[in-house]
This record gives sequence, structure tokens and C-alpha cells, in this order.
Amino acid sequence: MLNLAAIDKIILNALEEDSLYGDVSSEMIFDENDRCSGKFIAKEKGIFAGADVLKRVFQLLDDSVDLKMHIHEGAHVESGDLIATIEGLTRPILRGERIALNLVQRMSGIATLTNCYVKEIESFNCRVVDTRKTSPGLRIIEKLAVRIGGGYNHRFNLSDAVMIKDNHIKAAGGIKKALEKVKLTCPHTMKVEVEIESLEDLESAIENGADIVMLDNMSLEDMTRAVDDCNGRVILEASGNVSLETIRQIAETGVDVISCGKLTHSVSALDISLKF
Amino acid sequence: MLNLAAIDKIILNALEEDSLYGDVSSEMIFDENDRCSGKFIAKEKGIFAGADVLKRVFQLLDDSVDLKMHIHEGAHVESGDLIATIEGLTRPILRGERIALNLVQRMSGIATLTNCYVKEIESFNCRVVDTRKTSPGLRIIEKLAVRIGGGYNHRFNLSDAVMIKDNHIKAAGGIKKALEKVKLTCPHTMKVEVEIESLEDLESAIENGADIVMLDNMSLEDMTRAVDDCNGRVILEASGNVSLETIRQIAETGVDVISCGKLTHSVSALDISLKF
Amino acid sequence: MLNLAAIDKIILNALEEDSLYGDVSSEMIFDENDRCSGKFIAKEKGIFAGADVLKRVFQLLDDSVDLKMHIHEGAHVESGDLIATIEGLTRPILRGERIALNLVQRMSGIATLTNCYVKEIESFNCRVVDTRKTSPGLRIIEKLAVRIGGGYNHRFNLSDAVMIKDNHIKAAGGIKKALEKVKLTCPHTMKVEVEIESLEDLESAIENGADIVMLDNMSLEDMTRAVDDCNGRVILEASGNVSLETIRQIAETGVDVISCGKLTHSVSALDISLKF
Amino acid sequence: MLNLAAIDKIILNALEEDSLYGDVSSEMIFDENDRCSGKFIAKEKGIFAGADVLKRVFQLLDDSVDLKMHIHEGAHVESGDLIATIEGLTRPILRGERIALNLVQRMSGIATLTNCYVKEIESFNCRVVDTRKTSPGLRIIEKLAVRIGGGYNHRFNLSDAVMIKDNHIKAAGGIKKALEKVKLTCPHTMKVEVEIESLEDLESAIENGADIVMLDNMSLEDMTRAVDDCNGRVILEASGNVSLETIRQIAETGVDVISCGKLTHSVSALDISLKF
Amino acid sequence: MLNLAAIDKIILNALEEDSLYGDVSSEMIFDENDRCSGKFIAKEKGIFAGADVLKRVFQLLDDSVDLKMHIHEGAHVESGDLIATIEGLTRPILRGERIALNLVQRMSGIATLTNCYVKEIESFNCRVVDTRKTSPGLRIIEKLAVRIGGGYNHRFNLSDAVMIKDNHIKAAGGIKKALEKVKLTCPHTMKVEVEIESLEDLESAIENGADIVMLDNMSLEDMTRAVDDCNGRVILEASGNVSLETIRQIAETGVDVISCGKLTHSVSALDISLKF
Amino acid sequence: MLNLAAIDKIILNALEEDSLYGDVSSEMIFDENDRCSGKFIAKEKGIFAGADVLKRVFQLLDDSVDLKMHIHEGAHVESGDLIATIEGLTRPILRGERIALNLVQRMSGIATLTNCYVKEIESFNCRVVDTRKTSPGLRIIEKLAVRIGGGYNHRFNLSDAVMIKDNHIKAAGGIKKALEKVKLTCPHTMKVEVEIESLEDLESAIENGADIVMLDNMSLEDMTRAVDDCNGRVILEASGNVSLETIRQIAETGVDVISCGKLTHSVSALDISLKF
Repeated sequence: MLNLAAIDKIILNALEEDSLYGDVSSEMIFDENDRCSGKFIAKEKGIFAGADVLKRVFQLLDDSVDLKMHIHEGAHVESGDLIATIEGLTRPILRGERIALNLVQRMSGIATLTNCYVKEIESFNCRVVDTRKTSPGLRIIEKLAVRIGGGYNHRFNLSDAVMIKDNHIKAAGGIKKALEKVKLTCPHTMKVEVEIESLEDLESAIENGADIVMLDNMSLEDMTRAVDDCNGRVILEASGNVSLETIRQIAETGVDVISCGKLTHSVSALDISLKF
Repeated sequence: MLNLAAIDKIILNALEEDSLYGDVSSEMIFDENDRCSGKFIAKEKGIFAGADVLKRVFQLLDDSVDLKMHIHEGAHVESGDLIATIEGLTRPILRGERIALNLVQRMSGIATLTNCYVKEIESFNCRVVDTRKTSPGLRIIEKLAVRIGGGYNHRFNLSDAVMIKDNHIKAAGGIKKALEKVKLTCPHTMKVEVEIESLEDLESAIENGADIVMLDNMSLEDMTRAVDDCNGRVILEASGNVSLETIRQIAETGVDVISCGKLTHSVSALDISLKF
Repeated sequence: MLNLAAIDKIILNALEEDSLYGDVSSEMIFDENDRCSGKFIAKEKGIFAGADVLKRVFQLLDDSVDLKMHIHEGAHVESGDLIATIEGLTRPILRGERIALNLVQRMSGIATLTNCYVKEIESFNCRVVDTRKTSPGLRIIEKLAVRIGGGYNHRFNLSDAVMIKDNHIKAAGGIKKALEKVKLTCPHTMKVEVEIESLEDLESAIENGADIVMLDNMSLEDMTRAVDDCNGRVILEASGNVSLETIRQIAETGVDVISCGKLTHSVSALDISLKF
Repeated sequence: MLNLAAIDKIILNALEEDSLYGDVSSEMIFDENDRCSGKFIAKEKGIFAGADVLKRVFQLLDDSVDLKMHIHEGAHVESGDLIATIEGLTRPILRGERIALNLVQRMSGIATLTNCYVKEIESFNCRVVDTRKTSPGLRIIEKLAVRIGGGYNHRFNLSDAVMIKDNHIKAAGGIKKALEKVKLTCPHTMKVEVEIESLEDLESAIENGADIVMLDNMSLEDMTRAVDDCNGRVILEASGNVSLETIRQIAETGVDVISCGKLTHSVSALDISLKF
Repeated sequence: MLNLAAIDKIILNALEEDSLYGDVSSEMIFDENDRCSGKFIAKEKGIFAGADVLKRVFQLLDDSVDLKMHIHEGAHVESGDLIATIEGLTRPILRGERIALNLVQRMSGIATLTNCYVKEIESFNCRVVDTRKTSPGLRIIEKLAVRIGGGYNHRFNLSDAVMIKDNHIKAAGGIKKALEKVKLTCPHTMKVEVEIESLEDLESAIENGADIVMLDNMSLEDMTRAVDDCNGRVILEASGNVSLETIRQIAETGVDVISCGKLTHSVSALDISLKF
Repeated sequence: MLNLAAIDKIILNALEEDSLYGDVSSEMIFDENDRCSGKFIAKEKGIFAGADVLKRVFQLLDDSVDLKMHIHEGAHVESGDLIATIEGLTRPILRGERIALNLVQRMSGIATLTNCYVKEIESFNCRVVDTRKTSPGLRIIEKLAVRIGGGYNHRFNLSDAVMIKDNHIKAAGGIKKALEKVKLTCPHTMKVEVEIESLEDLESAIENGADIVMLDNMSLEDMTRAVDDCNGRVILEASGNVSLETIRQIAETGVDVISCGKLTHSVSALDISLKF
């Protein structure tokens, strides 16, 4: 499910940033034909994510580097677990090391965090989804990491679904008028989500054709009532103040989807190292 | 101290990722000439970083957008503080909103975290420095955020300083031979850092011309002895297991520099929002 | 509704293709400061499309060129009508002339053709929509031209909506299984369209959660029955063998949407010229 | 005769446009290792063009895809004829399908149309040539398609030959002065073409060193006289109002070259499909 | 006669190479608003070339920098002559200084050297022309510098004129067959040059339609006879072993054009400096 | 020690410049499958540089081309020496010929010239180093050529070392203040060089922490005194008016490093040709 062109762009950009004029240390010490081998080892507990990215970094630097995965994408790892082995020319391996680790540590951090949220609500028929609060330039792999961790994706960007927010509603003169305006040009293949801040707006959004209603920063009581009122007519998405402490209660309200910016904007890298 | 060409590349890349085919919602609701104004407000306490980036996002989208900073780069903010006001055409402002916030929230998160480390050791003559463990593609602004937070930068990438690690030393046949090999081609304008894991290697590194010695994962006792043995002949850098809990004790050993990956690889975004 | 970054890429690409090393003729004849003025005139009847593109070509070449539109985007023009006047430095105007004409002639050709289809079925509650059969690299302006001509857009590309075709269904083992598989990872913000070739498959697609059903190359009778059977539960899209001769009959069946590749893959440029 | 770098740019641009974030449908349904095979079939009569482009699309997506041509570039096809077979991984094949078809259908449409013009005048010693009225960004493959259809190319762009038009002549103060100005800097390797609108200008153009004279929108009588007057001293090119109805009469005047914008700006795609 | 898009690419590429992550020295010393002024002074005698490039470097870095030319493009300068004055923000001026000097020193070096060749043969009706032996990536400005120095350009690249060399002739089976093959597809707008190494081939090249014949490394006697034999029927170009010592004798043979690789591949930069 | 990404960019840029729309001559004459073989021969005496670049040009055009080096990088060649043999498809070989020669001739010219300077001072413990006066866009291969010729590199660009010049010193209010300002933010991994014009400034530069002092345009006497005064405390670099005539005398003063712009800005290409 990995899109090579977009991933390659991320990797090449990172390599340019990290070694535009080469790895001067390794060029001074190692001969062109020196070889080495090493092991990628988990140094803490979590969900590993980024197998394809890991392979691709070294493939782009030198397609003769041999990288063998020892666990599958999305596997639970404990500290000390062997993730992958690598063997090949020393120079490209050292040049790719930091980039590869930066990428898979971040992806694994996201997958691990997402999985904590998913675990909290696994007994509910409710999705954990990401947001557009991703690291600029890395959205495609961060959204992939969310899926690997058991979460789901929200819209990818501003171009692929309609989201009517507060200021859209005000400008149009109400939810009804906003949705009418949207329908004038909205492709029949595109969904429309409306963000509401009070229960009163729910019926208007549903009646005027919203596909999804986002309950923004609502109390648990209001969300419960919204679920009742809605009765399955549209998808209900809860948003705002979602944390590991609150997500279970939110899921109990019966909403279909809970979106959470923390999955991608406030993540600790999962510690992984390459040992030679 | 902002390099526009590199920053522009980051912003344009983020805009392409987030709205390659436009912001469909705003194009359906707002007319080309609709205008709006808003306020960037801090929603938690921290150090603000990213003033130039904030301005540049909107300048690239529409150079008639008027963004006025109300605080200076690196200012301490409390929840509720006004950071900046914005006024202009609605479409470009909404299109840049998420990108701008993603960037300054991350930069401010880094500056805030860095400042905590800096505060811990401000009574010592010792620097907090970053590493190459940055978000791929965002290194230039993350390293800028570290400086804004009161930290210092380590080398920017693999091309601008020599770093002799464990595997370089093994391959060369010892520290002495590695440094001799480096001197054969190393530009006279470039520094050489040697990473050592035990005290025995310190003298060899100093005698053979290292400019900086990195004490990797050493005990506090060993670091203290290293400072004594070195006696100011080279710069001593401590690295490994640096956290808010440990940094003060490390500084007490007398090392010159403490490098810390967490400053950039495990950061919580500082909460900032744009209110219309 | 024009996305400058994507449009600029098209224009700059065209300029590079047409004059990478300059316009040798004009550089030999005209001085740098020579000025001229001219008129863009319609030379046949149709719908004009591309006002923003027209302006942008010259703005990118020399932002002091003065281009004034005399008609609005989407206006009906007759042979001889004045579309726009232009005044400025001769060299950039001559260099942009052919690119500008190539773009607006094609856009106007598409808008004109689309409008013929739209006119044919304007008494029905049915949309004319485009397809992905666009000129490679020009999709964004060709889909814009369809909207200007009164049509609507289908999905923009393979990434923004799910389309389950014949071979997807076969591989999954039936429509039911295909839709179940899709639901496992499909974002809640994305619609799912299923292409069916016989009436039997309609119920299965609707029951298993399709948002849109495409009736591929069906007879008018079958389409009429599909509309009855569906009874408004999903959006019905007719596709295949759509021409100016057949579109009215197809609309009479009651389908919601008719998609037509000819709108973009087989178009005559609308004749427009620049007279000095 | 295909220039890979320029062709690759067109294909990669088209792939980015059509699937920047992947083919979500196929990723949901097909496993990474699923394979398929299919046939490219002509669905109407014409000249096939684009064999190298067809191969290259899939090679760029996955170089293990096996595409075998069953006809040669420029072959006449009838409806139902097998053009090529394809076998390989399903995901890259489906992802490339539409792009490949969009490209070869357009190229074949141009080759087919060009061939009609060429056939009309095959008994004359006269060339059918294209113009710069091509789809922006696709000129290199559209001009290739013209050659495959039996036509010839005019200049590729504004940089590779001198073309003196009406406004150049006016600005210079007559044909003589314009040609004198051109000769001051014109490389000895570059030809000079002069566009004239009346017979009186022919002699001046020839005497002052034009290599080619374009007879713009002249009557058949004037063109016939121009051929007589010229008597082989320069190449005569007829331009303006060239259609399938008029081209034979124009060729009868004895001109050497007839240029025709319709070959590329008003083309119907040749119907070709990929059947699995 | 400067093509901004191509020139900008050269300048931006040079800036990226020279200061991708900024000018660290100036950022440490100068404030953002510090201003300075300076003078571009010739430090040796020659022809100045590159006025537009000089302006454009600073314009791209900061369009408020004020650069005033004191001499015109192509002027003869003596050591000490004032070329231009500059005034503006210090940081962008220092950042562009080296790039600007590298470019105009090279261009002026080429113009100066070209002018020496031109002067040698100014009494003859014979052109000095350049070759494709230019610095990779800088061809457009090096060919511009040749023109500024009084020389003329040969073909720009492999795409814009036909050049039949030794190995083409061998492969085709002789000059006659090579030229016949060329005529099968050569656009009527493109010239054909044939390179010959002995006098015997001259007649064959002329009779079979060459526009230009290159006399490759021929003796002065043979060139003189070639001029006689040719008698103005084609353009004769002398090539090989052209130096300041030999060019006058070559011109005396009566050839029309003398091409010389040294104009661009072996040039001393003209010494120019920026004094604050 | 070659950085493929940066080298590839140079080569692809050169190929685009030289044959964006192909090599029309070879496409007219040679079939796609025609093959040829040739020899790269030195035509004058010097140091060969550019083996990896030579291979890479053809590899990028067609990875089946077989290029065999007959000498090693940095070898001394005499006129007539065989450098490499090449065998493969004719079209890509002819298309790459000029680019390959332009690159290796320039690199070999630089290596040859550098080697002359190095030879002059080989009995001294003194380095010949390059400057930033390189051909814009080609710095990485020109600096590589300097190393191949036995010289050393100065800083690569404005981002990787601090250089305090005259105007920095003035702006800061003296050397002491400038160095204090630098230390406020200068990474501990970066060296600081100070340029001085008179002996008086030497002590101040050394005492305030400069790593390198550049003696700019000083007399031999002053340089000798500077070496005495410095007594090994910092690296001393001589700069200004360095030529083959003066370098030996400069080395005799005892400076550590002599930098010389001529190595890269005023070079004659080493004559090399490809014979079929």
C-alpha cells in the first residue's frame, strides 16, 4: 500500500538534506569496496512500522545492499528484538543509517501511539482516525503509520473531501445555505462533512445532505444525544480534547469515528538502533 | 537567520501535499474577493518560534495578506496570549492555516522543550546541542527552533564536519590510524570529532589531533575523569541517555557540550490556534 | 476556483517547451523596450473558458503586461467578438501568444462541447460529468473547462474516491466480498462507486454499501429498470457510448449522472486569434 | 527516435496527476503480489502510434511488467485488432492503464488524422507539416505522432528557426530591413522563414535571403503564381484554412509544404481499450 | 536577448550550491537590517559581459537591492574602471557577491577572448563562431558572451540543426546516401551541415543538398581550393587547430565561418572585484 | 569519493541542455540497434581526472554501454595514451560524447594545473587549496579535480565554515568583537577563519579564538614574520596573487596553506578525444 513515487521523494529529499556533498567521514576512512553487516534492533516496546521505507532508503543509495526483515510490518516488538539485518557496501549503509532510523522511528512511534488509542476502544464499533496535523512533507508515511497501528485515515488533504466549518457556515448564512452552495458544484463522488458546535445544528446538517457530521468539542452528554438524534442517518465524528484518558468515554457515547491530532503532532520516536 | 530558499521549499512542499488541487470547500463557499481577519492565539504555555515561517506561508499564497506579529521570535507565551493578527482574502488564509499551524506548533514545541533543558543547566558553562535526529525534510527549521529555544546546533549534516565513530575506528585499526587517514584529505577548514566509549581512548584522540571528543554513554564518574584528563585541550561532548532528569548531573561533570536527540525526535506540538 | 500552483506548473512547462532558449525571431527584430497592443478575438461561436489562465501566461512572462478581459469566464461568444485587449512590451507578448492561445482554445473547445451536452438534457435533473480521459498533464484545466461549460466533475484521480470495476469484483469473489474488503480500510470520508454490467448486480451493490453505481454500457431499457429498482437509494451513473445523439435518451431513463469521455479526449479547439 | 528523458517527464507528470497518493481502489482489493494479463485492442480503424510510450509507462511503474507489441509503430489497425499483450503485477498495470491509453489514443488519433491529409496529396511532391498548435506539455509526442502518420515537422519551438511575421516586418520597416536585421546575429546554422500575405512581397523575401516563404491565407490563384514566380529559389509553404476538403487543391498549386494546425489541435482520440 | 527562465535556473542552482543553508558568517555578524554599498571594479583590461546576469543575481536574492550599471554591456574596460555600484541590505549582497563575480568574470573572460579573435579577422568577411564545447549547464550564458564579444553562435545543441560527421557518413555508405537519408525526415526548417576531411567530398556534399560544409582540420591550401570550388554555393566553415596565431591565415582562404572551441573551453576569468 | 546524486544532477542538466529534443542527426542516420566502439585518447600531456563521471554519463544514457578504463583516476597521461574504450549502441554513445568530453576535459585541465602548483612546493609542508571561484553549478566536480591533482579543498560553501572578512570586522567594531559575536551562536563543530590585511591584526585573531588566519595579499616579509609570530598556534593561509611564478616563494615563508583561485577560474581544458 506504499506509493513509491511519493515515498522516494521523501527519502531523496532527506538524503539531500543530510548528505548533499557526501558523508565526508566515511569517504575518508572506508574504501569504496569495504563491506559491513549490521542488525536493526528495537530498544523499547512498541509497534514496528516502516518496513518498505527501510528497504527503500538503502535501495535508493545502492541497490546491491541486502536488507532482510525479520518481523512483519505492524508487529509488536519488545526491547532487544531483531527487526532486520543488513549487509553490503559500508559507505551507502552508513550514509543511509540516520535517514532510515529517523523515518522508521517516527513511523513506529506513530503506530505505537495509535495502537494505544485503538486498544482503548477495541470493544466499541468506533474508529480512531488521524487529522491533517502531520509533519509537513511527511503526511503520506505518517498516515500509513496510523493505519499500521490499527487506526484509520481522515481525508488526505483539502482537495479530496468537503469540510464545512464554522467560518464557512457564517459566510454562507447558515448550514442550509452552505450545503446548498456546496451542492452546486460538488462532484457526486465527493463526501461532505459539516462541523457543528451545538446540538441544534445536527438536524439541519443531516436534512440538508451532509454525509458526515463532526461534533466539535462537545460534552459527553451532547455527543450521546447526538447519537440518539442521528440514529444512523449520517456518520458522526467526535473531535477535540481526545486523549488516552478520554477516548474510552467518547467511544461510549456511540459515535462512529474519533479523530485525534495527537497521533501525529505529538509523538515520541520509538527507539531503534543499527548495531554493526 | 532564516534562509528563504530552503524555507520556501519546505512550505511549497507542504502546500502541494495539503492542497495540490485546491481547497475545494472554500472554493465552493467563498467568493474570490471575500475577506476575513483572525488571531493566532497561544493555547498553552511555552516559547513561540517560527515568526518568519508564519509570515512566509501566507506571503507565498498571496502577498497581499497582512500578518502582524504581536510578540517577538522566542518570546515566552502563556495560554491566551495573542501571537499575531492576520487580515486578507479568505481563500488563501484558509488554505495556509493548517500548514502554518503545523509548522509553528512544531517549531514552538521544539523551542519550548529545548528551553527546559537549557534552563536546567543555565548555571553551568555548558551548551545544549541538537543532533541529526530531526524530521526528514525539516532539519533547517528544527535546528532554527533549537537556537530560538536557547540551544546550539551540532553539525548540520554528514558533509560539514568529520565524525569518527566506533566502526570507523575499527576499520582503520585504531584511533591513531583513523585520525591519520582523515588528515590525508580533510580540509583545513573542517573540524574532526571522535566518539569514544571508554576513558582509555581519550588520550589517543587528543594526541592525534581530534578537535572534539564525544563521550558516548559514559558514567558520570568517567565523564568527570575525562574532564580532568582533558584539561581543556579539546571540546568534550556528552551524549546518550540525556533527559530532563539527567542533564544537570551531566553538566556538573564539567563537559562543554551535551547533545540530545529528544529535542527534535520526541516533541509535543505547542498548541496554537487561529481564531476568526 | 483556479489553483495557481498547479496552473503555473502547466504554463511554465509550456513556456519551457516552446521557448527554452528564447524567441530568436523577436530578439533579432524587436528592442527590449518596444511595445505593442493587440486584441484577442473569437473567430467562431462558442463558450469562452480560460480567463485566469490567459492573464497568468503573460503575468508570468512580464508582470507589467496589461491584459483586460472584455467578457466574463464562460460567456457565449460569436465570431468577431472581442475577448480581451493586451498592451505591453512586445517581446514577452509575442513569446506568450501561442501558449496562451493553445491553452484557452483548448479550454474553450471543451467548455463549448460540454455546453452542447448540457443543453441537450437541461430539462432533466441529470448531470453531465467528465472522466479521467484528459490530456496528460492538463487535467486540472480541462476539468475546470468542463465546469465552465456547465458540466460537473467526476473524481479527479485514482487517489480520491474508490471505484470498483469488473476486475476488482472478480478478484475479490463478487460484489459483496469486494465491498467488504473495501470497508476494512476505506476512510469514512471517501465514497465508493461500483461499476456493474448487468441489472442483477445492482441490488448487491446497493445492499453492501455502494454510494454510487455505474451502469456500464447498459441498454436504455436496463437503465430504466435500474432507476426503478434503485429508487433513490444510491446515485446512478450512466457510462459508455454517450454522444450528442444518445444523451437525451439516456437522461430520459432517470439516471442521476451521465459521464462522457468525449468532453475531453476528442475536442476541437475553439478558434481564437490575437490581432495586433 | 524517441527521447526518453522528455518522454519520461510527460509520463511521470501524468502519473503524479492521476495517482499522487496511489490507486486506493486497487490497494484495497488486490494484494501486492496479485498478477493479471490483458490485451490492448483497437476499437476503431486507424493508424496506431505510441508503441514506445506504451512500453515506457509500465516500465516506469514496474520494470517486471511484460508488454509485447503485436503490431509495429504506424501500423494500420481495424476494429478488433490486437495491438499488444500485457502480463504482470495487477497494481502497477491498473495504475498505468488510463495514462497509457490517454497517451496512445491521442497519439494514434493524430497519426490517423495526419495520414488522411497525407493520403489526399500523396501523388504530389508536397509535404504535410504540423505547427506549434499542440497540447501544452505534449509537443514532443504529438510531433512524433505526426511523423508516424506520414507527415513532417515544422520548427519545434521559438528557439530553433527564425520566423518573420507581419508584426516583425512592420516593426523593422519592411521585409528587406527585417531580413538585414536578422542577418546581423542569426547563426549560420539557422533557417529564416518569412510570412507574406500578398504576392508583391515574394520577390523581396527571396532577394533578401529568406530560406522559406510562407504564403499566409492566399487564394489558390495567388499561390499558383507564387510557385511560378519563385521557380524553386526558396521553399514555399502554404498556411491557413487547410482542411481535408481543401488540401488537394492547395497541393495542386505546386507549393512544397502545407502546414496544418488541425493535425494537433482538433483531434479525436482513436478508441483503444485494455481487456483483461 | 537574455532568457530569464534559463538564466534564473543557472543563478538559483549556483546559489543553492554556494549557500544552501545560508551564509553563516554574515548571519552571525550582521543584523537583518544592516545596509552597505559597494563598487564593481575592473582589475584588468577587457570586454565586460554579463550586465543582466549581474542585476538578476541580486534581484533574486532581494529585489530591493539597487544595482546601477556604469558601463554598457560589451564595453571595453581598463583596470580600475567602475563597472557598477550596488547599495542595499548587507546580507543578500554578501551572499550574492561570489556568485555574481563567478558568472560575470567568466562571461567577460569569454567576451574578451572572443573579441581578440574577432579583431584578428575584422578586415575579412568572415565570422568567428563558437562550438558546443561549453561549461556544462552554462551554455546559454557562454554563447551570449561570445555574441557580446563580437562572435557568432553555431548551433545551440544536438536538436536544432543536422550535422553529418565522419561516422554518420560511414554508417550511411557515403555522403550521398547520408544526405538522402536525412532528407527523408528532416524538417524543411532545419539546416544540414556536412563535415568533410578531404576536398574530394566537397562536391558530393554540395550536390546532394548540404547547406553548410565544414572543412575539418584542412590545410590552408585545401581550404583555399575549397573556397574556389564551392564558389558561394554553400556556406564554408573552417574548424580545427584554430588559434590566435592561425585564424588570420584561415580567414585569408576565404571561408565564411571559423569555429573555435577555445572561446569557451579554455578561458581565463576577467578579474573584477567588489569593493565596499 | 563521488557523490552520485550531485553528479547525476550535473550530467542530467548538461544532457538536457545539449539534447532536450534528441540528437536529430543520429536519429536520422542510425537505426536504434546500430552499435559502435571507440577509444578515448589523450591528445596532450597532463593528469587525467573524471573516471567516474565519464562512466556515469553513458550509464545514465544507456546502462548497457560498456566503458572500460585503461588508466586510473589521477594518472599522468602523454599525448596518444589510451584512456578508455567504449562499446555499445551508437545513438546513446554519440549523444553522450560531447557532454562526457566537456566534463572530463575540464576536470583534467584543473587536475593538471593543480598538479603544477603542487609540484612547485612539494618539498614544503604546505598545502595548495582551492577557493569558491568555481564554475557555477560544477563546484563538486571541480573541487574533486583539485584533490585528484594533489591539492586540497577549502570550505565548500558559505554554510560550512565561518570566514570573517574585512567588512565583517568593520561592522562588528574590530576583530575581538567580531569573534565574540561569532562565538555566541557558532556551532562547536565549525571552524572560524579570520582574514587579516596587516600583521597587527594577527595577535588579536589568535587570542580571540580564530582557528585559521588568512594573510590576504601580504608581502613575503610580512608572511614570514606572521609565521614566526604565530608559532603554530593557528593555521596560516596565504591568499592573493598566487601564481606558478610566486607560489614557491610563498611556501618558503612557512605558511601552512596557500589558496589559489586560478586552479578553477582560469583553466585550459585538457585535450581528449573520442575516436571511432
